[in-house]
Amino acid sequence: MLKLADCFFTQKRNMKKIYLSMALAICVQLLFGQAQDKNITIPDLDNYKTLKCDFHMHTVFSDGLVWPTVRIDEAYAEGLDAISITEHLEYRPHKEDIKASHNRSFDIAKTAAENKGIILIKGSEITRSMAPGHNNAIFLQDCDKLDTPEYMDAFKAAKDQNAFIFWNHPGWDAQQPEETRWWDIHTQLYEGGFMQGIEVANGPEYYPEAHQWCLDKKLTMIGTSDIHQPIQTDINFAKGEHRTITLVFAKERSSESIREALLSHRTAVFYKDMLIGEEVYLKELFKNAVAIEKVDKTDKNVRITLKNNSGLTFRLKKGNHDPALTYFREYTIEPNSLHTLDIRLSESTQSGNVNFEITNLLVKPGKGLDYQISF
Amino acid sequence: MLKLADCFFTQKRNMKKIYLSMALAICVQLLFGQAQDKNITIPDLDNYKTLKCDFHMHTVFSDGLVWPTVRIDEAYAEGLDAISITEHLEYRPHKEDIKASHNRSFDIAKTAAENKGIILIKGSEITRSMAPGHNNAIFLQDCDKLDTPEYMDAFKAAKDQNAFIFWNHPGWDAQQPEETRWWDIHTQLYEGGFMQGIEVANGPEYYPEAHQWCLDKKLTMIGTSDIHQPIQTDINFAKGEHRTITLVFAKERSSESIREALLSHRTAVFYKDMLIGEEVYLKELFKNAVAIEKVDKTDKNVRITLKNNSGLTFRLKKGNHDPALTYFREYTIEPNSLHTLDIRLSESTQSGNVNFEITNLLVKPGKGLDYQISF
Amino acid sequence: MLKLADCFFTQKRNMKKIYLSMALAICVQLLFGQAQDKNITIPDLDNYKTLKCDFHMHTVFSDGLVWPTVRIDEAYAEGLDAISITEHLEYRPHKEDIKASHNRSFDIAKTAAENKGIILIKGSEITRSMAPGHNNAIFLQDCDKLDTPEYMDAFKAAKDQNAFIFWNHPGWDAQQPEETRWWDIHTQLYEGGFMQGIEVANGPEYYPEAHQWCLDKKLTMIGTSDIHQPIQTDINFAKGEHRTITLVFAKERSSESIREALLSHRTAVFYKDMLIGEEVYLKELFKNAVAIEKVDKTDKNVRITLKNNSGLTFRLKKGNHDPALTYFREYTIEPNSLHTLDIRLSESTQSGNVNFEITNLLVKPGKGLDYQISF
Amino acid sequence: MLKLADCFFTQKRNMKKIYLSMALAICVQLLFGQAQDKNITIPDLDNYKTLKCDFHMHTVFSDGLVWPTVRIDEAYAEGLDAISITEHLEYRPHKEDIKASHNRSFDIAKTAAENKGIILIKGSEITRSMAPGHNNAIFLQDCDKLDTPEYMDAFKAAKDQNAFIFWNHPGWDAQQPEETRWWDIHTQLYEGGFMQGIEVANGPEYYPEAHQWCLDKKLTMIGTSDIHQPIQTDINFAKGEHRTITLVFAKERSSESIREALLSHRTAVFYKDMLIGEEVYLKELFKNAVAIEKVDKTDKNVRITLKNNSGLTFRLKKGNHDPALTYFREYTIEPNSLHTLDIRLSESTQSGNVNFEITNLLVKPGKGLDYQISF
Repeated sequence: MLKLADCFFTQKRNMKKIYLSMALAICVQLLFGQAQDKNITIPDLDNYKTLKCDFHMHTVFSDGLVWPTVRIDEAYAEGLDAISITEHLEYRPHKEDIKASHNRSFDIAKTAAENKGIILIKGSEITRSMAPGHNNAIFLQDCDKLDTPEYMDAFKAAKDQNAFIFWNHPGWDAQQPEETRWWDIHTQLYEGGFMQGIEVANGPEYYPEAHQWCLDKKLTMIGTSDIHQPIQTDINFAKGEHRTITLVFAKERSSESIREALLSHRTAVFYKDMLIGEEVYLKELFKNAVAIEKVDKTDKNVRITLKNNSGLTFRLKKGNHDPALTYFREYTIEPNSLHTLDIRLSESTQSGNVNFEITNLLVKPGKGLDYQISF
Repeated sequence: MLKLADCFFTQKRNMKKIYLSMALAICVQLLFGQAQDKNITIPDLDNYKTLKCDFHMHTVFSDGLVWPTVRIDEAYAEGLDAISITEHLEYRPHKEDIKASHNRSFDIAKTAAENKGIILIKGSEITRSMAPGHNNAIFLQDCDKLDTPEYMDAFKAAKDQNAFIFWNHPGWDAQQPEETRWWDIHTQLYEGGFMQGIEVANGPEYYPEAHQWCLDKKLTMIGTSDIHQPIQTDINFAKGEHRTITLVFAKERSSESIREALLSHRTAVFYKDMLIGEEVYLKELFKNAVAIEKVDKTDKNVRITLKNNSGLTFRLKKGNHDPALTYFREYTIEPNSLHTLDIRLSESTQSGNVNFEITNLLVKPGKGLDYQISF
Repeated sequence: MLKLADCFFTQKRNMKKIYLSMALAICVQLLFGQAQDKNITIPDLDNYKTLKCDFHMHTVFSDGLVWPTVRIDEAYAEGLDAISITEHLEYRPHKEDIKASHNRSFDIAKTAAENKGIILIKGSEITRSMAPGHNNAIFLQDCDKLDTPEYMDAFKAAKDQNAFIFWNHPGWDAQQPEETRWWDIHTQLYEGGFMQGIEVANGPEYYPEAHQWCLDKKLTMIGTSDIHQPIQTDINFAKGEHRTITLVFAKERSSESIREALLSHRTAVFYKDMLIGEEVYLKELFKNAVAIEKVDKTDKNVRITLKNNSGLTFRLKKGNHDPALTYFREYTIEPNSLHTLDIRLSESTQSGNVNFEITNLLVKPGKGLDYQISF
Repeated sequence: MLKLADCFFTQKRNMKKIYLSMALAICVQLLFGQAQDKNITIPDLDNYKTLKCDFHMHTVFSDGLVWPTVRIDEAYAEGLDAISITEHLEYRPHKEDIKASHNRSFDIAKTAAENKGIILIKGSEITRSMAPGHNNAIFLQDCDKLDTPEYMDAFKAAKDQNAFIFWNHPGWDAQQPEETRWWDIHTQLYEGGFMQGIEVANGPEYYPEAHQWCLDKKLTMIGTSDIHQPIQTDINFAKGEHRTITLVFAKERSSESIREALLSHRTAVFYKDMLIGEEVYLKELFKNAVAIEKVDKTDKNVRITLKNNSGLTFRLKKGNHDPALTYFREYTIEPNSLHTLDIRLSESTQSGNVNFEITNLLVKPGKGLDYQISF
């Protein structure tokens, strides 16, 4: 049959009369998933919307394996707010068949993005050997200007367009086979204003060194899928897996707000069952995800009822605490569930703090968020 | 470890001091499913709430394989509103180990039902050879009174308690090996007021003859799981399967309203991807499930945008129609999705009717609901 | 990162030195599925191998949405033996970006096919308004020769190359909005030797009229996916779904044997949980799928133990039978499972036939395979 | 309907004549899973069979929620070789309804176990406050003899029967709220020959301290499900989860061989995606799971083709190595898959060792198995 790539605009297509005259456009758009819900609920912060963003992916226009509109369909099905299709500028293995401007995959995806309400941000991947390795520039106006022989000229062209630039997969073993090194060239880029962020996680990989660099150098933490395949080939949604993304805490749901948030380091990385980010944001996210529904106190016991309204899992580990309180050593708060925690009290204990570390909310490498529920 | 069967009431249990003194009650209650959402959204009618009910199941107290509280946990996870645990009165293969009143599984499940907000209706299965075969009596006060040598005395004891009585799996091949027969005894039961409904579907089986009998004799259509195993053993939720249930269109969410609705035949049977029921209810259900979001008309074309807000699938088949309209021959409206249908128009057609049969909304055996969208 | 589209041949790629020098090729090939096994076991016939084939699909080289190698990866993961990538000759919506010979997607996929052991058959889709509608020609040497203004010239060019030609989706409502009609042009094609088969099923659609035509006119029954999307977008493998394919009963696993089998009508269509084909093949397939492990006979009873060694489901319905035998009315033989059937006997019955229809092995429209187990 | 709990023995049941005369026994036994395969392939060792065993679980006869035969059905579906149903001796919350010998759940499950080929080992859980906490005694002849007021008498009664005794969930926070402590009573039990093993993992929990104790004191490492619910309630098989079990490396598949292996410490614990055990067994298991199919060497490169024939995942991390070799830093060998690893060589390197740690094969707390592939 004929594929109606974009139902809303079939009439505009230059289809041959022979079948247009007979074509019945029937178009389905799934609202919230199929067998499994791919869209994981994550709460907003008090003053910011939490936007789900993926700023690194490929299509047939570089070394990806799908047509650009597929990236929009995938983003829509997973409930993403914004994506950037970031083709390699220098690596185009399909170029024998596909010759096009570096802006082309953006242009093709644009209409589909508008129809499905996805914010599409124009970007490119500056693809060099180490150093500087691979770097993404997003919020570009014209990707073609970055296609330069010298890498530094590409960075300059990006900066000229006020791009947000981040270093990709700094621990990729093809370029960093022994360890995740910071090279002199990265110092030059960083100091010259050519690096605003780093990928702390890329697809299935997490880079603790990059995590620490972001904290030390005030760089924005980025997580991306770097997807080349159809997304379901790499991500098994039936198992509850999700792609690695950046949560952007934005003033509103717009391209410009995403940019402002990125420049202000207001992000967290959603990687496997972990969130990686600054303490202030992770704490607020947890508070908004898990409501304390009820605290029932008797002489011997405090019973705390929690409701996890999010699709996130939280892994708790007891922290230092008042010996008058006896409670769990480790506890997992499952997604979308109601939990009852019992704390036993020594005689005459009237109040106290239940201290714990949320080990999968990473505030620095190896360290989870400390949290306290008082009664 | 120790299983805390019901977190809310652990203190009441007669646990030995040795471990109660150390027990930390931790209790999890899933709000809306795990990997897969087991709770399928079905809309209310205009004047009635749609309640999901299963009036036929077993536990270890007859020939089932789970403890009664498991039936509550399962019902809760699947979003059911009401269940009845209907142990066989005459068939108790575990009686060597479990000697108890026929009311016992109800009594055990009662507290768990209250804690999880499930309406628990007391019932029993009168389990006889054909005829009369197996019959469920629900809304009982005392099941023990139905344990009589003569089947007719059991029916009378049920009627004395104002029970709602329905004939179970009338086409079960163990009792009806050649065809689904109505026996003389069923005429006696029916005419004597001892039969108010029939199972039109039981677990994986649908009985078209029983469907027709319900229409002809004004009997209430019932669908049940008749589950004996842990529910996940028979129902593969990861594949999107659900148990067979009765949708009860009730004035409110209460036991008494369910009873009133059953006596008024306001039910539909949710079996596989089909709904079986009276036309008036199925039509309203479809109308409330699938909203017509937009109708865009040009000279040549009408584009209808539909939004299926339910978890139900609807299978459409073109009906007799004005030859000026050209549209789909068959079309499936997937759950939770947005659909765009194009209807081509002959010249100068200003208005018309898109006629179709919804083949999986069964208004009588072999016949789907006729529906019309006008523009 | 860089995608290594085909691990076995990365060195041949014209990659820039800058990263080739650092590239570590790591390549994974799944042997038998991931979370769910996508490869459904289907037995061979006594004298033929059962090959799983899909002769109709698209890539970005016509109106599909994936790169040609993806079709090989998908086929491999699903355990297919042979595929044909059949781009539309006349409908190339991506042609602004992709200008290429009609042979190009075959050429790109060829190496990947060889590496993964998939038989890749060169083909094209002759894409015209009705009549003749869409037709696939496979076993071509040069697709470009079919790109002609007149459809008849395309058919002739195909026949000149000894192509096997089949009519696609004859009941597609975009071209046959009211009914599945056989047009005069189809008579001309058929009588002129330009039609050897018809799609009896295409993706989610089955065409009973086409099924009957195949039986009446000795045309080969074909089932195809006609996939345009990444396969997982349309097929939910986690739910046990599979793409529609043609089972080819071939003398050996080779392109030439597939061709011989197609010309000899030795196929069956695997569509949803149904097999559609000639009685002789379906009967042998069932016999080879379901072994009778044991028959235990007493005076009153025969117990038959069956073992379904295939991934197929078989739906049995009792047929006319000796009244001395009492057995199931309907019964489902689940995939990969052991079944025990009890047949009760009237007194003094020594032997008999258990007759049933296998309703999902379709020997003609609406009619399942009749089968008999004797004891 | 009636549940035919065990098809093979329905005739023996004391069913009332009224329906036995009409019952058609139909019985299904799944050979290898349904939607998802629950049976994870794990290879044998060179001289031992790898048996999958779960020595800790409950039914309605203590505080579990299923009938004993369900535990056999579950074990069969998951491909387990042996189980022990270990009811609490002292904690029987259903005793108001179920009064029985402590041997009763074994006796009920015995026939089902024989029919499905599961080795059923008689056991009990001695359920005391800490210390000694909970301990399982398996290979008992008469569980009732362990029902004594003094815990020490229970251990003696177990020892008198030559039981294998292990300490359950030593880090359970209900009994060890602050840390996993070894109490004086455990020294007495250990030195007195009343402790042969410890649970290193119980359900979702792993106890590193217990892991170390097993290594230091030559105790057998045990992993169990301690399941109380229907297994699917706790384990999401659709997500690829499995219950925690003990792999027993036995001379043959028999109860006596399991006992001999347990007494010889030949076990490993399969917990989440980890195997916990002695180096000698884990190394052999990896060797037998992952075959080196091919080693292709050029001047610049070695390409190693690995085939993982098991259902296990292996997580590799580069170890100390010859600087002439450049290869992956981390690498995951997926289940049932073919992998190609590239190692780049400095000039004139002729041979070498690819060193890595398999981080999820735990040879002691926090330390994976070191492994080497030489070329």
